[in-house]
Amino acid sequence: MISLEASKKVCSKQAAHLTRAVIPLLYRAHTVGLGYPATIRIAAIAQRCRSSQNTRSFSTTNANQLRDIFPAKETTYIRQTPPAWPHPGYTEEEMLAVTPAHRPPKTVGDWLAWKLVRLARWATDLATGVGRDQQVDMKNPTTAVAARKPLTEAQWLVRVIFLESIAGVPGMVGGMLRHLHSLRRLKRDNGWIETLLEESFNERMHLLVFTKMAEPGWFMKTMILGAQGVFFNAMFLSYLISPRITHRFVGYLEEEAVHTYTRLVQEIENGDLPKWSDPKFEIPQIAVQYWRMPEGKRTMKDLILYIRADEAVHRGVNHTLSNLNHVEDPNPFVSDYKAGSEQRKPHADAALKATGYEREEVIG
Amino acid sequence: MISLEASKKVCSKQAAHLTRAVIPLLYRAHTVGLGYPATIRIAAIAQRCRSSQNTRSFSTTNANQLRDIFPAKETTYIRQTPPAWPHPGYTEEEMLAVTPAHRPPKTVGDWLAWKLVRLARWATDLATGVGRDQQVDMKNPTTAVAARKPLTEAQWLVRVIFLESIAGVPGMVGGMLRHLHSLRRLKRDNGWIETLLEESFNERMHLLVFTKMAEPGWFMKTMILGAQGVFFNAMFLSYLISPRITHRFVGYLEEEAVHTYTRLVQEIENGDLPKWSDPKFEIPQIAVQYWRMPEGKRTMKDLILYIRADEAVHRGVNHTLSNLNHVEDPNPFVSDYKAGSEQRKPHADAALKATGYEREEVIG
Repeated sequence: MISLEASKKVCSKQAAHLTRAVIPLLYRAHTVGLGYPATIRIAAIAQRCRSSQNTRSFSTTNANQLRDIFPAKETTYIRQTPPAWPHPGYTEEEMLAVTPAHRPPKTVGDWLAWKLVRLARWATDLATGVGRDQQVDMKNPTTAVAARKPLTEAQWLVRVIFLESIAGVPGMVGGMLRHLHSLRRLKRDNGWIETLLEESFNERMHLLVFTKMAEPGWFMKTMILGAQGVFFNAMFLSYLISPRITHRFVGYLEEEAVHTYTRLVQEIENGDLPKWSDPKFEIPQIAVQYWRMPEGKRTMKDLILYIRADEAVHRGVNHTLSNLNHVEDPNPFVSDYKAGSEQRKPHADAALKATGYEREEVIG
Repeated sequence: MISLEASKKVCSKQAAHLTRAVIPLLYRAHTVGLGYPATIRIAAIAQRCRSSQNTRSFSTTNANQLRDIFPAKETTYIRQTPPAWPHPGYTEEEMLAVTPAHRPPKTVGDWLAWKLVRLARWATDLATGVGRDQQVDMKNPTTAVAARKPLTEAQWLVRVIFLESIAGVPGMVGGMLRHLHSLRRLKRDNGWIETLLEESFNERMHLLVFTKMAEPGWFMKTMILGAQGVFFNAMFLSYLISPRITHRFVGYLEEEAVHTYTRLVQEIENGDLPKWSDPKFEIPQIAVQYWRMPEGKRTMKDLILYIRADEAVHRGVNHTLSNLNHVEDPNPFVSDYKAGSEQRKPHADAALKATGYEREEVIG
């Protein structure tokens, strides 16, 4: 029992408490024939996909629940709910070119951010019951992707759902604080807000995609709840104190994400994950629509390649923003987030610029 | 001295304190030949407009400060910073059709929201030194727009800058809280977030346009700072407690805004505001670019018509959202906010639907 194991390590008393609570979860896990017991239940994906195959890609509400308030005019118009930020898309080359990378800390702030991220990763490994032999080489953590023992699908879903539920927070906090700052200082924002909000939207889309594949039990949900409470306030304070360090922290967080998803891609390729390695595996419709995934390129591996590229973009963008003067420098990425797939996409370059642009490179 | 008058009413001691502080402000006001002393200084607009006539419409940073990080590709691309949400635009008919209106409170929550807004308006009149004879008929407050004595340009700017600095808060709070809710509940949002964020962006644009015309002194700035501190936390709690009441509150707030701007339009037409009634008066470039105001339709009156229409949209949208079930109902306006001017604009209908759509009209 993933979380149970973790708790045992932390405190045997808690574990005793948990056992009672966790039995139904174990049961649920087994009933759906999940090899490895987990606090999450792999849901009947096909069925879920069917339910999301209505015209409104980004709402669980059925199309027919929306009445057309403008009968005389385009009736399908209101029915369609496009994403808040249409995804600019990637070429396959761009996605395959993404690699794990690490920006060596240069300042004390960098070092602090880096150590915090490492601590967070250690805690996550612990909480999601990642065994010693499942951990990657701790010598060069953000570049090594192979472990002696692969994770299971259940472990992967626990991990990514938990992490994506956290990943959507910093962008929103940063965007909100810069918005309020602009209002009370009567100053322009230089285009940072949009990029930050788009980041948080993109991370939320990742989460929604994964929750279409698995529904966490109450235990995971409670963990997510608590984690958000802590993380939101931490980000809020940290962004007030030092946007520079906070962006660096997110940059390092995204380094870990790229590293994690690269490992996932590898384990899918190795056939370590029977369900996901199967090319017949049907990914959620919402993902196909959000990334406009081309016909025949809709395997689980393709999906993870898109998500990894997104994380790589956030990695490059946040490392860059951390290098800039957050008071007066314009956001060099701002235009691209409205670009749409037909225009060229500097964000893809950001994905490859793993350590971000130095200020001198961007600001003349 | 606008704010001083207000303070006197509140507390003569404070007034005494203020006098010392306020003299330089008074001085500043007089030096620019402002008939009515104010804490704000009407700035040399022409000069300000020149400075904003570079390609980057939405940043105070000069274009040349941005180095092109993709030399081989579209060099002007990065230089341009389009608005986060391009304005869908209005036809002149749509803007002229906007009228002050009032949705009679139906529930206790409505009544509470309504009374709070009235209290806020009373306090604002007091704080911005609006005399008895400058106030409109208190019998039917949101429809009457004529007062015995018009406000001055200085009074108008104090008022709109203060109000717009507040107006940008609720949308951001609502959007953020729904975003966090979606993350921790692993549920879709049904498209509300975007509309709320777009609202806050739009209000911030109004603020930036007005701050191009006048630069508040430290006294106003302090008031703005304090007001945001109070208002943000109030909105935060209130949205957690009842989104329904909060949206109603914003709806009523926007009723007041439409009413206020309608009065402003009228006073401009009456020639009560010499500077602004002058068709030669040059409005900030940022406004021309944001609303894509047509050649020959760029007077102060035209500008206020655009802003009034925006407030009318928020009025209709928030009254509607308040009528919906915030947990499961989709946002009927969501599509339009990405529509762009070439497509039809349900938001314009929202502007005319002053009391909002009832749930039965929108949700089938």
